[in-house]
Amino acid sequence: MIDLKPLLSPRSVAVIGASPDVGSLRGRIVRVLNCHDFNGKIYPVSRSHKNIFGEPAFSSILDVPETVELAVLIIPAEYVLRTLEDCNKAGVKAALILSSGFAEDSSSAGNDLQAQLSEFANKSGMIISGPNSEGFVNTKNKLCPTFSPTVDGENIDLTPSWEVKARVAAIAQSGGMGFAFFDRARPKYLPFSYIITTGNEACIESLDYVEYLIEKNEADVFLLFMEDVKTPSKLLRVAKKALVAGKPIILTKIGRSDAGARAAASHTASLAGSYTAYKTVFDEYGIIEGEDIEEMVDIASGFIYFGDRLPEGKRVGIFTASGGGGGWMADSCGVHGLDVPILDAKTRKEIDQYLPSYGTSQNPVDGTAGVVREVGYANISRMIASADNVDTVITIASTRVPHKLVEEENLLAELSKETKKPVMIWSYTLPHDESSRTLAASGLPLFTNVRNCTRTISLMQQYKEKKKNYLNGKIKATADLDGRSNLEEAIRKESLNITEFRSMELLNQYGISVNRGILAKDAGSVVTAAKKLGGPVALKIQSAEIPHKSSAGGVKLNLIGEQEIINGFNAIIKNIATNSPKAKIDGVLVQKMVEPGLEIILGITNKDGFGPILMVGFGGTSVETSGDVAFALCPVTPERCESLLGKLRGNILLDKNKYDLRPLFSLMTNLSNFAMSMQKLISEIDLNPVIMHSAGNGISVVDALMVKFDKSMENRS
Amino acid sequence: MIDLKPLLSPRSVAVIGASPDVGSLRGRIVRVLNCHDFNGKIYPVSRSHKNIFGEPAFSSILDVPETVELAVLIIPAEYVLRTLEDCNKAGVKAALILSSGFAEDSSSAGNDLQAQLSEFANKSGMIISGPNSEGFVNTKNKLCPTFSPTVDGENIDLTPSWEVKARVAAIAQSGGMGFAFFDRARPKYLPFSYIITTGNEACIESLDYVEYLIEKNEADVFLLFMEDVKTPSKLLRVAKKALVAGKPIILTKIGRSDAGARAAASHTASLAGSYTAYKTVFDEYGIIEGEDIEEMVDIASGFIYFGDRLPEGKRVGIFTASGGGGGWMADSCGVHGLDVPILDAKTRKEIDQYLPSYGTSQNPVDGTAGVVREVGYANISRMIASADNVDTVITIASTRVPHKLVEEENLLAELSKETKKPVMIWSYTLPHDESSRTLAASGLPLFTNVRNCTRTISLMQQYKEKKKNYLNGKIKATADLDGRSNLEEAIRKESLNITEFRSMELLNQYGISVNRGILAKDAGSVVTAAKKLGGPVALKIQSAEIPHKSSAGGVKLNLIGEQEIINGFNAIIKNIATNSPKAKIDGVLVQKMVEPGLEIILGITNKDGFGPILMVGFGGTSVETSGDVAFALCPVTPERCESLLGKLRGNILLDKNKYDLRPLFSLMTNLSNFAMSMQKLISEIDLNPVIMHSAGNGISVVDALMVKFDKSMENRS
Repeated sequence: MIDLKPLLSPRSVAVIGASPDVGSLRGRIVRVLNCHDFNGKIYPVSRSHKNIFGEPAFSSILDVPETVELAVLIIPAEYVLRTLEDCNKAGVKAALILSSGFAEDSSSAGNDLQAQLSEFANKSGMIISGPNSEGFVNTKNKLCPTFSPTVDGENIDLTPSWEVKARVAAIAQSGGMGFAFFDRARPKYLPFSYIITTGNEACIESLDYVEYLIEKNEADVFLLFMEDVKTPSKLLRVAKKALVAGKPIILTKIGRSDAGARAAASHTASLAGSYTAYKTVFDEYGIIEGEDIEEMVDIASGFIYFGDRLPEGKRVGIFTASGGGGGWMADSCGVHGLDVPILDAKTRKEIDQYLPSYGTSQNPVDGTAGVVREVGYANISRMIASADNVDTVITIASTRVPHKLVEEENLLAELSKETKKPVMIWSYTLPHDESSRTLAASGLPLFTNVRNCTRTISLMQQYKEKKKNYLNGKIKATADLDGRSNLEEAIRKESLNITEFRSMELLNQYGISVNRGILAKDAGSVVTAAKKLGGPVALKIQSAEIPHKSSAGGVKLNLIGEQEIINGFNAIIKNIATNSPKAKIDGVLVQKMVEPGLEIILGITNKDGFGPILMVGFGGTSVETSGDVAFALCPVTPERCESLLGKLRGNILLDKNKYDLRPLFSLMTNLSNFAMSMQKLISEIDLNPVIMHSAGNGISVVDALMVKFDKSMENRS
Repeated sequence: MIDLKPLLSPRSVAVIGASPDVGSLRGRIVRVLNCHDFNGKIYPVSRSHKNIFGEPAFSSILDVPETVELAVLIIPAEYVLRTLEDCNKAGVKAALILSSGFAEDSSSAGNDLQAQLSEFANKSGMIISGPNSEGFVNTKNKLCPTFSPTVDGENIDLTPSWEVKARVAAIAQSGGMGFAFFDRARPKYLPFSYIITTGNEACIESLDYVEYLIEKNEADVFLLFMEDVKTPSKLLRVAKKALVAGKPIILTKIGRSDAGARAAASHTASLAGSYTAYKTVFDEYGIIEGEDIEEMVDIASGFIYFGDRLPEGKRVGIFTASGGGGGWMADSCGVHGLDVPILDAKTRKEIDQYLPSYGTSQNPVDGTAGVVREVGYANISRMIASADNVDTVITIASTRVPHKLVEEENLLAELSKETKKPVMIWSYTLPHDESSRTLAASGLPLFTNVRNCTRTISLMQQYKEKKKNYLNGKIKATADLDGRSNLEEAIRKESLNITEFRSMELLNQYGISVNRGILAKDAGSVVTAAKKLGGPVALKIQSAEIPHKSSAGGVKLNLIGEQEIINGFNAIIKNIATNSPKAKIDGVLVQKMVEPGLEIILGITNKDGFGPILMVGFGGTSVETSGDVAFALCPVTPERCESLLGKLRGNILLDKNKYDLRPLFSLMTNLSNFAMSMQKLISEIDLNPVIMHSAGNGISVVDALMVKFDKSMENRS
């Protein structure tokens, strides 16, 4: 963890490049800093101005009488480096570079400047945020080194005026998106501890901020907008820490589409990583992906108010005074995998005494306007929460008129404090500001979007499961690295593409059972091998230079009898002589034909910096067109394998009476352990097809291929 | 079409039950009526008050000096009927019943009162809206017979102050939801012509309003919230009219989940129909389903401003001054099936002249704040719209500060008027009211939700396709009703459950080729039949009283040779004697065994009032657990069959090289025609399994079952 205290909570700040012209960003930042009540000292530094907004300005950081902790630089890119050197001399501990003109600029000068910046940070030990950043906000210290219009004004409160028990941190590479989280969450009074925009991340990365705020317990929920991840291993580490701490990360990572990746590339001068690998990591550690700013803010609000009381299950109880609204919400629960059971008899009996003849206590509880008036939102919500078959309560209200909520403020606050089950509010009309304030102050999340409300409940319940499973070790295995040294030695000797025969030998050596076969060099030994194996056989050319054996004419299947086998062998030799005349041939692999069954593809990719990732899919050849595959970080447990299979669309066609999945899960866990053991050497493994036989008849690995890293990659950490 | 003019656009209105107490709904409605500038006369009618808000009140409708067109009733349910009789005497043409206490009340009195109301409407010819309605708003006439708080105030404008070219009508059974559409759309200045809440729909249904407004061209886009559909055939008729007129319907129909259906039932005293049938109708006629109020309002805004220029294709050009925002939007395009291609060279050249070195014209066009300032939103949007490979433009803006948009108002209005391609605005910050006003007045839709923006574009493009295909007859066939009379005669003679043998005979008679087989009565004739057919055979018991032949032990498959066949026959007879001793047996069906192949289920259901619906799914037995089936209204074209198959999840596993789908499509179209021809007689057909053989080997219908309507249903229209 990098200690970011001097950057995020400095006692004193210098603004280098300050100006009194509020039409420019240089003036705007000084105004924004001044208009909130920062309790440290702010020193304007300017070469052109002696006085800025009534404060004396210094012509250099070296002239400032005090040793300042944080320097904010808003000067042309070409002066940044020498100014940082002055800062270093002056004892400045951290710098925030708002200047642009670094790697985001397509000119080569920008790239060079950014490289020099990183080098300077490494050498000097100075903590450097940016460049090309829009700055940050520390709401506790009321420190706003930013020119964002979203905090430009004395009337803009950075935090609610009441005590809060949990806080959000928004962290974004993009200044626009980072402050948009704050701007969009303000009408709902969501409490933020930090809004941090990170710009080009030449030194400090988004994940460094997340890690620091987790460790220092300065945020409870994270809203992240990421364009790239510079250090993949950091994502693994921070995601784990967040899950263990129970501090959910809600993020958007752009680069899912080609155009999205292009935008990320052009913007932050870096390539977006493979999205599949990211998805796999997110899924593994319960990181929640959001599609829209408001959706992410809404999800955050659920965790902020009820992160300590996540729903035990999927059962929702609904109160409504609008029958239509209740039906809509109930349907939305169904869409998001939640149940709306008829309430238990005891609860119905309690509620029924307050209902008129046109109301119903079933669920949704349709209580009409009279019940709201006489019983009140807090009491009816408490009654529903008391039902044994309810895990979460949704109370539907029209909040455009606030008086009823305001009148109930104390009761609502009590409800929020005492309930063991989350209580969510959905308003179908636009909330009056007083309604939003009252609910936030009471500690109840307010949704204006039915989908966001039910999706949030569903995500909260899944997060609870995910955390529990992770802590119980059900999802994540620890790698079994036994017998590594001999194998490593053997793999180092292989060529870059390892042939099927050699791949099979290596897997077999690790204890993974495969359809091994016999390597033969001439027609005579092929026939002998076939006799030894018995039954119909397959012949396959073996050459590190021919990874695609079939298309080179190097495979013959289902050969029976000496003559057919000899003919097959000769045909292969002839095809290869024509198609790959220069390939170095190891021989022909003779394999016993395997009974048909359900074809499965298993694979390992190990290219994105997250360690080996296991892939599974149904269907041999069809998998490529269907793309129906699922991924998990290695190593995996059998439970994880089962959940992976459940994600495949083709799973619905899998006849569970016909197949026993345990041999498959055992193969998957073994393969994932093998990949973990050899992760510095092996970049890819393909077992395709693997044939699953009917229950009791096991599983056959029919073809295998491994690809190694080239030497230059072998020793990376 | 029912002429709703006296209800929706009356020259004069009487409020029966009016009161000066604004704490009650009776007073509120008078205040709301008065606070908007209705240009007709309003007569309060009250038994207890002589004067209401300075106007004289009449003690009965019969005392009102003028013949009023519309009477609004807000009096206890038990007085409604006799008051309506007075209204009738007084020449009132239409009545709006706001009173509750009808079928929504679980007491039997409420149901009776509602039945009497319907009867009175039928007898008198009076147009009756409600009961239990929250009233409506006609924005053009500024007529607001409602107590909804959303229009309670002189400061609440019903329409924008500028000329609009298209208008939304919101129609909802639920008062809360109906006016919520208006409330949520107001901040975006979406123009409404009507907000209509329909209550219990004792007489006039939601779809009657839709039909009237289509015919009178008083709305261009519909926002609907439906709890039930009382007359299914009306949905078909109105959906067709709307599609042909190019007036999209965006709706939520509750009852998708059990709890949703329960809510609908308790609320409107009616059963929600089968949701699958609704989905089928929606899909057929391009009706758009929305998940949330704001989402529906956003979709409507796209159609309101660019319904006359729907996107020709899926290609989107994006402008952004926030690189992060651009990437987010591009990814969201990908999620919703849209492409973001690199702009053509000519367009890039034009844009490049305005970009700094850190901008890019690829797509998203990342123009930075400087480009916004110097080129402006309108000009850059126009440049992107001019690209040959763009169908829609998304311009990303931060609208919390309005001055730039306000400055560009004329240019934006010109852009909106002249562009042939939709231009959508996405704001990542919360819009300033002036920004929203400027964009709406200019005629550009403003989105604050990235997902709603891209989903709307995608829906607009699909709607254009759907309309075109419908008008071209690609989706909807016209039924071929040839040869109907003989078949009808034959079907009338069948029992309620038609046996496989008879079902096959009927299909065969219609020209659908099936695996017919021979009906035999004893072991000897079974053997003779088997010899005649050749090869292995199947034996199946035939009895109208045994629809589940297998579970009764009435099926033996793959029998070869005389002895096996005789044994099989005897076993069946024995099983049936034990399991269904009293069943009347037609005989045993002897069928030639069919070669294995891909199993398909085809079915017809004809129970929901929308005419026969065709179902198709993969997998014989597994289909029931997977639920992977797709539906279409009959009759279908081969193109429609293809699109249905494309919807199946299992479709990804279908090897298109192995199977020729044309015989399947031909069977599906024939079956759909058969179902259309016999729709008054047949309620269900199951062909399961149908076996598709490899290309060139056709298709076999292996089992069939039909169920008839009982007599009482036969003559419904």
